[in-house]
Amino acid sequence: MTKQVAVVLAGCGVFDGSEIYETTLTLLRLDQLGIGYRCFAPDIEQHHVINHLTQEPVEGESRNVLQESARLARGDIQPLEELKADEFDAVIVPGGFGVAKNLSDFASEGDGMQVLDALKETLTPFWENAKPIGMMCISPVLVPRLLGDSIAVTVGHDPSVAGAISAMGGLHRSCAVDDIVVDLEHRVVTTPAYMLATRISEAATGIFKLVDRIGEMMDQKVLNQ
Amino acid sequence: MTKQVAVVLAGCGVFDGSEIYETTLTLLRLDQLGIGYRCFAPDIEQHHVINHLTQEPVEGESRNVLQESARLARGDIQPLEELKADEFDAVIVPGGFGVAKNLSDFASEGDGMQVLDALKETLTPFWENAKPIGMMCISPVLVPRLLGDSIAVTVGHDPSVAGAISAMGGLHRSCAVDDIVVDLEHRVVTTPAYMLATRISEAATGIFKLVDRIGEMMDQKVLNQ
Repeated sequence: MTKQVAVVLAGCGVFDGSEIYETTLTLLRLDQLGIGYRCFAPDIEQHHVINHLTQEPVEGESRNVLQESARLARGDIQPLEELKADEFDAVIVPGGFGVAKNLSDFASEGDGMQVLDALKETLTPFWENAKPIGMMCISPVLVPRLLGDSIAVTVGHDPSVAGAISAMGGLHRSCAVDDIVVDLEHRVVTTPAYMLATRISEAATGIFKLVDRIGEMMDQKVLNQ
Repeated sequence: MTKQVAVVLAGCGVFDGSEIYETTLTLLRLDQLGIGYRCFAPDIEQHHVINHLTQEPVEGESRNVLQESARLARGDIQPLEELKADEFDAVIVPGGFGVAKNLSDFASEGDGMQVLDALKETLTPFWENAKPIGMMCISPVLVPRLLGDSIAVTVGHDPSVAGAISAMGGLHRSCAVDDIVVDLEHRVVTTPAYMLATRISEAATGIFKLVDRIGEMMDQKVLNQ
């Protein structure tokens, strides 16, 4: 039976949802490796809607995170609460500001942020069962509150986000756009993606490396279990 | 100076806009080949908004094609009327129902369809100057009305769409998901993409082949000019 990876989305669009290219590149690489995937998103209202042409919030408009994430998943998606870790071998969270606005309140609260309860509840069993966790772009900022202290992650070189990760008890490592940071002990893999990428092919290199490593880790036994 | 390709979008989402994976895979391959690109979309209201979770139209909601296409382009997009063919070496139109609802009315009118005037005006100079034109998924249905009669294209195997192309004076050729149809005389390249794809890696194979061929054709002199 093929390996299965859960992909958690936060809307559709870099400024108020999941980053579209990061998500697409993640799914492409999983499929190229013959790894199955299913997408999930919380059935909640978006923090706000951003006009991606002007980058301004749209007054009086609301959109649902699950419905907008369904655009990114071609309709093939389930509510986050239906994500059961025992049906999957790993989980990946692409980036985009939706991670900092819908899956958490990092965008407004900084290192005082909280993570969406449903995300913590669904991802904790992955963590407790040593199943690999992949995060990219801004998503690694979730790690200290979501998983715990002293887990090495990267968001590239951004000093304010790196500082917030440190302030919450995390470990930030600088990393090039085409590379990954692997915390082998905690089985967490991160890459800067569009925190640093200026071209889609740059983002692809790091994301493909992340997915490849997640694939390898799913095949490896955990030595201390 | 690097080659430049214009990419024409029709919204953001398979059911009411541009197909997200097809667009992303097109941009990825262009960038991997070192070919520059710029995205364009018409500044018009969408035909309608589809809830991608239920696939039902959303009553009372309207969205702008340029603003939604900006999601797919990370904000880096221009209105379609600013597309000047003399600044580009080729043009590609990804698929998605937005092509049949926003760039034309094929979804409602079938072979009685009309193409958006602004699309015809901006793409005609590519055609007249023998610059390669790439279309995928449902987009090749535009070709007879947009470019002219007797140009060989594919949408895969769909009999109703193939029949409509024939009824409008076009030539439809059956094609596998991982392959392309090239009309060398008219310099039009098409691939079925999500008209046939059941996996993103299948769509990628055909789309990468299309972009590669467009890249080669841009480098070739037109013999009869």
